[in-house]
Amino acid sequence: MPKIVDHEERRWELVRATWAVIRERGVGGASVRAVARQAGWSASSVQYYFSTQAELLLFALRAISEEAERRLDAPDLPADPRARGLTQLERLLPTDPDSQVANEIWVAFLSLVLVDPEARALNSEDNRRGARLCREVLDAMSAAGQIAPHVDLDIEAALLQALFDGIALHAVTDPDQMPPTRIRQLLDYHLRRLQPTPTTDQ
Amino acid sequence: MPKIVDHEERRWELVRATWAVIRERGVGGASVRAVARQAGWSASSVQYYFSTQAELLLFALRAISEEAERRLDAPDLPADPRARGLTQLERLLPTDPDSQVANEIWVAFLSLVLVDPEARALNSEDNRRGARLCREVLDAMSAAGQIAPHVDLDIEAALLQALFDGIALHAVTDPDQMPPTRIRQLLDYHLRRLQPTPTTDQ
Repeated sequence: MPKIVDHEERRWELVRATWAVIRERGVGGASVRAVARQAGWSASSVQYYFSTQAELLLFALRAISEEAERRLDAPDLPADPRARGLTQLERLLPTDPDSQVANEIWVAFLSLVLVDPEARALNSEDNRRGARLCREVLDAMSAAGQIAPHVDLDIEAALLQALFDGIALHAVTDPDQMPPTRIRQLLDYHLRRLQPTPTTDQ
Repeated sequence: MPKIVDHEERRWELVRATWAVIRERGVGGASVRAVARQAGWSASSVQYYFSTQAELLLFALRAISEEAERRLDAPDLPADPRARGLTQLERLLPTDPDSQVANEIWVAFLSLVLVDPEARALNSEDNRRGARLCREVLDAMSAAGQIAPHVDLDIEAALLQALFDGIALHAVTDPDQMPPTRIRQLLDYHLRRLQPTPTTDQ
C-alpha cells in the first residue's frame, strides 16, 4: 500500500519551522534553505510545497491570521459584552507563550509589508478584520447600555484598533513595560471609560 | 591645501543612502554594498565609517530619533496645552513626506528590534522618550484644567503612547485608512475626551 502523505500537515510542519527561523533570524533570514534545515527536510522537498521564499512567508503569515481567528472563537467567553470584548482582545495580544510567538512574527513581518504588495494586501485584510472586531465589541457594549449615548462609535472603533495594535507592538518590542497584567489594566480602563456615568473609581 | 573632509556630513550622506535602500528593499536588503551603490561610493569607503551592516543600520536608526527631537522642538507651537500636545504628536506622525519616511523606516527597523540586542535597547530608549512626551502633554493639560480630576494620568500616558504608536503603524502599513486628516481627528477626539465636563459635541 502506498504511503499516504498528508500534504496539509506537511505544509503546517513547514509553517512551524518558518516561524522558528523568523523568531531567531528575522524575516530576512527565513530562506527556503534555512527553513528546510530547521524542519530537517531537503531544500527541494520544501520547494515542492513553496517554490519561493515569498510564498513560504506569506503562507506563514496567513497561518497566523487563521490561528488568531481560532483563538478568538474559542469557548468560554463571558456573557457580559464588556468582559467578552476584553477577553477577545486579550486573547489576541501577547498574554501567553503562543500568542507571544504569533505577535512576534506579526512584528517581524511588518517590514515585509513595506516592500511586498502581497504582504501589504494581507496586512490590510487583517486590519479590516481588526476594525470589524473592535466595532463589534463596541456595538455589543452600546446595545447593552455600556457606552454613553454621545460617544462616536466610528471614531471609538478606530481608536480602539490603534490602541490594540500599539499595545501589541509594545508588548513584543518592549515586553518589560507591557506585561499581561498591564495589557489587561489598560484595555479594561479604556473600555470602562466609555460607560454612561463616569465614576471616580475608574 | 589638503581637502578637508567633513566626516559628520559624510556619515549623514550614508544615513540618507541607507534610508533610501531600506525604503526600497527593507532592512534585510540594506547591506554595506547596497548602501555604497546607492550613495555612489566604494564599499571600502563606506566601511571607513561603518565596519558592519549592524553599525550602519543602528546609526541610521539613531539619526531618525534625533530628527524626531528636532521636529518636536521646532518653533510655532501653540500656547494652549491641548493644542500644543496635539501639534507635537502630529509632528512625529506620518503627516508630511519627511515624517512619512521616518515612520516607514521605524517600521522597517522593528524586525531588527526582535533579533538584535542593540536595536532592542535603542527602541526601548525611544519608547522611554515617547512615554515622557505623552506624560508631559497630559501633565500640562492637567495643570491647565483640561483633564478631569478623577483621570489616572499614569494609565492615560501609557494609553496615549500605545494609541500614538498604533496610529503610526496604521499610517505606514495601511495609509489609505489613516491619512493625516484622520490622524488629527483621532488624536483631537481622544485628548478632548479627557476634559472635565464631557459635552455632546466631542
